[in-house]
Amino acid sequence: MKSTMQDDQLTIASLVRHATRVHPDSHVVTATADGSRSITYGELGGRVARLAGGLRSLGITGDDRVATFQWNNQEHLEAYLAIPAMGAVLHTLNIRLFPEQLIYVANHAQDKVVIVDDSLVGLLAAQLPHLETVTHVLVAGPDAAGADLDSLRSSGKEVLLYEDVLAQQEETFDWPEVDERDAAAMCYTSGTTGNPKGVVYSHRSAYLHSLAVCTGNVAGLTFADRVLPIVPMFHANAWGLAYAAIMSGASLCMPDRWLQAEPLVRFIRETRPTLSGAVPTVWNDVLTHLDNNPDVQLDSLQRILCGGSAVPVALMKALRERHGLDMVQAWGMTETSPVASVANPPLGVDGEDEWRYKGTAGRLLCGVEGRIVGDDGAVLPRDGVAVGELEVRGPWVTASYYLSDDPESEAKFDNGWLRTGDVGNLDERGYITLTDRAKDVIKSGGEWISSVDLENALMGHPAVLEAAVVGIPDEKWQERPLANIVVREGASVTAAELREFLSSDFAKWQLPEAFAFIDQVPRTSVGKFDKKVLRQRFREGDLSVEQA
Amino acid sequence: MKSTMQDDQLTIASLVRHATRVHPDSHVVTATADGSRSITYGELGGRVARLAGGLRSLGITGDDRVATFQWNNQEHLEAYLAIPAMGAVLHTLNIRLFPEQLIYVANHAQDKVVIVDDSLVGLLAAQLPHLETVTHVLVAGPDAAGADLDSLRSSGKEVLLYEDVLAQQEETFDWPEVDERDAAAMCYTSGTTGNPKGVVYSHRSAYLHSLAVCTGNVAGLTFADRVLPIVPMFHANAWGLAYAAIMSGASLCMPDRWLQAEPLVRFIRETRPTLSGAVPTVWNDVLTHLDNNPDVQLDSLQRILCGGSAVPVALMKALRERHGLDMVQAWGMTETSPVASVANPPLGVDGEDEWRYKGTAGRLLCGVEGRIVGDDGAVLPRDGVAVGELEVRGPWVTASYYLSDDPESEAKFDNGWLRTGDVGNLDERGYITLTDRAKDVIKSGGEWISSVDLENALMGHPAVLEAAVVGIPDEKWQERPLANIVVREGASVTAAELREFLSSDFAKWQLPEAFAFIDQVPRTSVGKFDKKVLRQRFREGDLSVEQA
Repeated sequence: MKSTMQDDQLTIASLVRHATRVHPDSHVVTATADGSRSITYGELGGRVARLAGGLRSLGITGDDRVATFQWNNQEHLEAYLAIPAMGAVLHTLNIRLFPEQLIYVANHAQDKVVIVDDSLVGLLAAQLPHLETVTHVLVAGPDAAGADLDSLRSSGKEVLLYEDVLAQQEETFDWPEVDERDAAAMCYTSGTTGNPKGVVYSHRSAYLHSLAVCTGNVAGLTFADRVLPIVPMFHANAWGLAYAAIMSGASLCMPDRWLQAEPLVRFIRETRPTLSGAVPTVWNDVLTHLDNNPDVQLDSLQRILCGGSAVPVALMKALRERHGLDMVQAWGMTETSPVASVANPPLGVDGEDEWRYKGTAGRLLCGVEGRIVGDDGAVLPRDGVAVGELEVRGPWVTASYYLSDDPESEAKFDNGWLRTGDVGNLDERGYITLTDRAKDVIKSGGEWISSVDLENALMGHPAVLEAAVVGIPDEKWQERPLANIVVREGASVTAAELREFLSSDFAKWQLPEAFAFIDQVPRTSVGKFDKKVLRQRFREGDLSVEQA
Repeated sequence: MKSTMQDDQLTIASLVRHATRVHPDSHVVTATADGSRSITYGELGGRVARLAGGLRSLGITGDDRVATFQWNNQEHLEAYLAIPAMGAVLHTLNIRLFPEQLIYVANHAQDKVVIVDDSLVGLLAAQLPHLETVTHVLVAGPDAAGADLDSLRSSGKEVLLYEDVLAQQEETFDWPEVDERDAAAMCYTSGTTGNPKGVVYSHRSAYLHSLAVCTGNVAGLTFADRVLPIVPMFHANAWGLAYAAIMSGASLCMPDRWLQAEPLVRFIRETRPTLSGAVPTVWNDVLTHLDNNPDVQLDSLQRILCGGSAVPVALMKALRERHGLDMVQAWGMTETSPVASVANPPLGVDGEDEWRYKGTAGRLLCGVEGRIVGDDGAVLPRDGVAVGELEVRGPWVTASYYLSDDPESEAKFDNGWLRTGDVGNLDERGYITLTDRAKDVIKSGGEWISSVDLENALMGHPAVLEAAVVGIPDEKWQERPLANIVVREGASVTAAELREFLSSDFAKWQLPEAFAFIDQVPRTSVGKFDKKVLRQRFREGDLSVEQA
């Protein structure tokens, strides 16, 4: 029996129509060196149409790929909307990729046009000659005319000013009808081995993910909200916050390149966002800034989303107790659009129990199914105890990688489920507790030691700014944990003191004996702890290890 | 370019899996004569599986239709979940339909099984022999064994106790994979002319509508919420509140047949819902009850959704000012799943301006597009002034009626848009202001007079309980308004006083001269003012009309 319902497609063009027609007085504010600039969604609609017209005039048709090399700002949002709405495919380039990775992904995706921020021209120029399929570069931003355009032109590509291209177009565009399963956008994951792998989002997956972000269990966005995505739009779609804001009519506050605590806090005080999202490092810096400036309050922020790596409970506690800020941990990955779970504690818990739930990777959202699979491939009980690899599935989870013949790619999927590479357990109420990345697990004497738990506890020590625990070979126990510690400025602590500090929360066999005090934790291009580098440094004798 | 995303279908079975696995400790509470009964979503999951198994054992396969003849209660929720999840089609029968309509819709839909509440056995029994395709009747509810089963059995149908059927089944069911565009449920609209017409919802439309209801701009549901659907589950799916609660993990408070103000208020105080939805009449009664019982507070209710007919601003004001309750108007119809717009005022308005927006039919939701079309078929400007018929489209709007050869059916669609039959305007920010049903418009001297505006104003008079304005023929002006007034118990008012009361808000030519004081406003089977009957009574001289 067929239903009688309309078969309207879930598309980015329909989001553009909605936001610009129903919420024309919402706005997008972008930070500048000394303040901000702003336009309404009504005005944005005209500019998005002009951008689509401009790209069409440069020969972008069908599902051609248009890349962005941009901070979080108004022009990046315009690209987010115009490119998929016109039927083309948005490819967000991570500006922090290593040169050879950047070249690889742009060539693999066959990007034809790159839109680059004026402030990033220098970073792009050196690689541009190697981007084989790129024909045009558009330079965007208020200072585009003053950028070193010759450094781009020497690549032989045609270089245009973004505003010049828009100025020649009409304020309306006849958005083509697209199938909701067609590609809308793509994002490459920074593989730890092999080449980066591309995830190709559909209009449908982006639309459904945005709806989920707008629901009460995630962000509950309304058009009265003001959303500050600090997490980059080139990193897992800024967690869907840009499209979700457009969908709900919420205004957007864009930090552009002003991501240090001081200008960020100033921007928050000036633009008064109600919701923000960023990785723990950013909030750690903001916390330090707030601690040092007791008269500064961020009272507009009703909810802070945090994720990208495990969120230390100590950070959440400090923000709530010292600054009245409510931080909620969420979990996901590029392959899951990314939001898959959010750590709202269940009803009726309080005190340390509440913090225990806030410390999980979150509760599965409706739309995402999860399971824990053991080494032997068997599905383990959802009892909060059995530990294995987390697998997920759902309409905004990827089923494959784009044109990948890498054998590692196929191994990421298990009969329709995505193997997340995260290890942990799932409880009876859908809460995910992650103990490690599969590649980072520490197995000591046949038992697993959770590096995440140890890091979380260590970062609760007042003298510790950051902690990264890795497994190192051990003759007797196969592996033992090595705790790499970055000490907070002006503070001091010894290995013995840290081991003593941990001893109340961990069994003796779980406590690290080995500590290394380091200046900073090495990071990947998306800002995560790079434990591969730490293990390598240990192997090469570059870490000065103390025994506690 | 194909996306790499998974093609998981949006189905009711996935909602069942989510709610019962991730929110097993949420619950559904059902009102009883002297209190309530309750089960958890975990337990609900087992019962839903048993019901599916039971229906399969009775021969329900493929897309067979299973009808419900039930109040809002736990067993009706079980049917809402089990029937679509097993691939069959839920047909909610309106218990208030006139007998010939009930027989028509059950036969037209070819219902095979009817699930009936013990308290409704008497109402069904007389019509049951005429339900030609029905083979089995399941009697549900705590008093099912004591119901007059013989009155049902005399129809020749097989009559079983719902609990007996469930008891013979397993607590798990292997939900079949269905296409999200397949039929999940159906609901007939009570046509004012011709036979009722069926809308067949798909899994996809129900899922997307539920997601929309869970977003911040509608109900912003979280698993901490408790939802009280007073609007019947046989009336436009209880506005999607049942599925939305299941999707978000919110608990449900079901009023069963206890819909009068006194037991309803008691149930609200006992079960402490955070959100509720009902038509204005219900809230009018609750308001009177609260006014008469000043020590009673409904402080758990954070938001009240109201719709089904125009919501008097006076009602919203009284609830807020005298009882601290926040009521929000929503608009929709069976054909739109139903929620299409919600009247949250825009940012930055207050005072009378806020009430003006709260008095509209609401702002279009993302997913629903709207336009105003004039008599000549031309699309009119979205300027808040131009008046015409409202047309809508979107993935939860119907595109046709089920197996309807009624010429009126085809006229309801306009190139992919649904003609709503509602007349009004649309402003630059997507707010819909409705002035009339197309069939109820009053055209006087070439100008439209809004019956809705007059009714709203009249119901703001302290002596007026209800007002229904209809057009009556006039030699000079073609039509003039006749105001039918139900006076509040113990109050009194004259036609002249009411005309004087209106004169500050309306132009002189808009003021009714003719008033009829009546005992009650006739209603349709879904509780709306039946103006057809009022016009007929006037024609037949059954109304005693006074001139003011």
